[in-house]
Amino acid sequence: MPALSPLAPDAFPDLPVIDGARFASAQAGVRYKNRTDVMLALLDPGTTIAGVFTRSATRSAPVLDCQAKIGGESGEGAAIVVNSGNSNAFTGSAGQSAVDAIVAAVAGATGIPAGRVFTSSTGVIGEPLPAQRITAVIGDLVASVSPDGIHGAAEAIRTTDTFAKGAAARIDVDGRDVRIAGIAKGSGMIAPDMATMLVYLFTDAAVDRALLQRMLTRQCDRSFNCITVDSDTSTSDTVLCAATGKSARIDDDNAAAFEDALGRVMLDLAHQVVRDGEGATKFIEVAVTGAADDKDADRIARSIANSPLVKTAAAGEDPNWGRIVMAIGKSGAQADRDRLTIRLGDILVAENGWVALGYAEADGAAYMKRQELRIGVDMGLGDGTATIWTCDLTHAYISINADYRS
Amino acid sequence: MPALSPLAPDAFPDLPVIDGARFASAQAGVRYKNRTDVMLALLDPGTTIAGVFTRSATRSAPVLDCQAKIGGESGEGAAIVVNSGNSNAFTGSAGQSAVDAIVAAVAGATGIPAGRVFTSSTGVIGEPLPAQRITAVIGDLVASVSPDGIHGAAEAIRTTDTFAKGAAARIDVDGRDVRIAGIAKGSGMIAPDMATMLVYLFTDAAVDRALLQRMLTRQCDRSFNCITVDSDTSTSDTVLCAATGKSARIDDDNAAAFEDALGRVMLDLAHQVVRDGEGATKFIEVAVTGAADDKDADRIARSIANSPLVKTAAAGEDPNWGRIVMAIGKSGAQADRDRLTIRLGDILVAENGWVALGYAEADGAAYMKRQELRIGVDMGLGDGTATIWTCDLTHAYISINADYRS
Repeated sequence: MPALSPLAPDAFPDLPVIDGARFASAQAGVRYKNRTDVMLALLDPGTTIAGVFTRSATRSAPVLDCQAKIGGESGEGAAIVVNSGNSNAFTGSAGQSAVDAIVAAVAGATGIPAGRVFTSSTGVIGEPLPAQRITAVIGDLVASVSPDGIHGAAEAIRTTDTFAKGAAARIDVDGRDVRIAGIAKGSGMIAPDMATMLVYLFTDAAVDRALLQRMLTRQCDRSFNCITVDSDTSTSDTVLCAATGKSARIDDDNAAAFEDALGRVMLDLAHQVVRDGEGATKFIEVAVTGAADDKDADRIARSIANSPLVKTAAAGEDPNWGRIVMAIGKSGAQADRDRLTIRLGDILVAENGWVALGYAEADGAAYMKRQELRIGVDMGLGDGTATIWTCDLTHAYISINADYRS
Repeated sequence: MPALSPLAPDAFPDLPVIDGARFASAQAGVRYKNRTDVMLALLDPGTTIAGVFTRSATRSAPVLDCQAKIGGESGEGAAIVVNSGNSNAFTGSAGQSAVDAIVAAVAGATGIPAGRVFTSSTGVIGEPLPAQRITAVIGDLVASVSPDGIHGAAEAIRTTDTFAKGAAARIDVDGRDVRIAGIAKGSGMIAPDMATMLVYLFTDAAVDRALLQRMLTRQCDRSFNCITVDSDTSTSDTVLCAATGKSARIDDDNAAAFEDALGRVMLDLAHQVVRDGEGATKFIEVAVTGAADDKDADRIARSIANSPLVKTAAAGEDPNWGRIVMAIGKSGAQADRDRLTIRLGDILVAENGWVALGYAEADGAAYMKRQELRIGVDMGLGDGTATIWTCDLTHAYISINADYRS
């Protein structure tokens, strides 16, 4: 296992108990030894579920299965089963058979209909998933579910993650305490195109499925779709959100506050994924303003955030703003060299088509030694804005990915 | 200087003398010490010149200047001056002033009109170009031009290149010997969007400017636009082709043979740039067939060739074909998991949506130890084809780019 990311939070947060949701984890030995690798979440009847999935054209069997089920009826309970170590992606017809076997085992052990059992798998692509190792532990998982098992669940879904990821929020709705708790895994193969990792969100609010889906999709676009580690998109990425309905009902009158809280949890998890970017030593915010429109701003921010040359400069603590200019230039967005302004944090680095008067390289170099960097670009053209989060590209990224399977 | 690329050719080739073209190089001390860093090519009256340039929105002053001049009249001689060490990009209005100073010095020393003096600069972005260091050596350069100075010119334009790049072809046109010789520099910031490095091509053929431009543009699309090292696009990239008119005339009747030879020289140079990719240890050909159309094939091939996960797997000699599936899936092109075929060289790795029957991981692992790799993908959908060349992503890439300026 790689060493803990230097950008990791101090500890896994205390996540609130979500009434109606229980969790368990187990060692199934799918691929890893001496660690948990399967989690189960059981959700009470009345739970609504929304989901956002990878747009990859080669998405995995579990993703296809989840997508087919996500619009289904919600009167009954539900279950989510997730394994690490093997993604069950590009495994031909055997992929769906493995999903079916796991779903059947959970349905049999819990009485939950198969159409309400959602599975995810994460890990190596293209190797058959030994489903029987998972089905063998379903009984134990069902027997051991607990309202406070969510931390264990977050641990079980890790692959190259150096820390388990959790976040939570609480809001008051009509005098009732509404809770949101989320867990995530992800540290590489992270790119900004629809859901980009495994994320499970739980709330005790009562939310109609359609409303929950709208809020989840919108907040994905502002969180998980705004981060990038290596520009690669997984075949397995999934965001599921379950609302158990035990607390206050969310409707048009109070949806904004709930969605805001949900969005904060999602952004917190998204930032944690970047902080665990494979080999990351710098957390980088790229904020673009003044672009011709939001779409152009997004292009520019992603072009900077995905540039290997910008990311290696950050790793080397080099205030090489010329590479930022390069990345703006190649983005395809409208740009006028002489209207550009580039800042590192609060330091004005370049404007009027050249290095800023008064910019001292020593200031830029000192700034780059920080763990948290902010690259600010104003295009001077219009009102378009976008913010993307990423990390640096280091030797450790190469080491992790050059021998991930061995 | 980094060590010589393990993928380098054995030696710089013997380039034929091009009648009407003379070359010189000198130590101007723009940035580097104890090496040549400026080259001059002088071209006889009657030379036609065509050019292809980076599409970056933040292109450098020399690129903008070349673009403005490229369609000009050709009755007079011409000159090309190139420096390494500083790209004169994002240097505000001082950028054009530096170009003007160099152009004026060459025009003054040679009598060639300023509108026929082309300059290029390559190196660090955003620092003022000390033009006076270049103008100070123009007199010496003009005094020392020689028909066989082209190897020296190729050496002078290197930046992080570990070897000088040259290629040549000769064809018979109506009993006359027509020669083409080219030099190039480039090893990083190489991406497949229009010209992607500095390339200078010289021929003694007589070719109308418009025809020369058409052939050059078409062959760029088949050579320099089909390679990628790090997906980054330089602000300075330039391909110039000069035809001195001393040998046979190229017209519609014999243009095909000439263009074919020109294309071979360009592809040879393009492959050399990949072989000198920063930190490269593997030369990788990605060949896609059976895509819905050529555009989709191109998308898929570039998605694979630019994937950091595919490139690190190559560096680790890991036959991780699951990452190839991932890269196909994220490309945005039409794909059907169950119709895909993936090959490593001649080894059938995956088909029918899964690992191929008879594929042995040991065979894949043995194949990946080669220096020259071929990833073959057949989409099973249509007639679209594309081939892209790239290299692996290694620790040395990080080392080179994390401290390029220091």
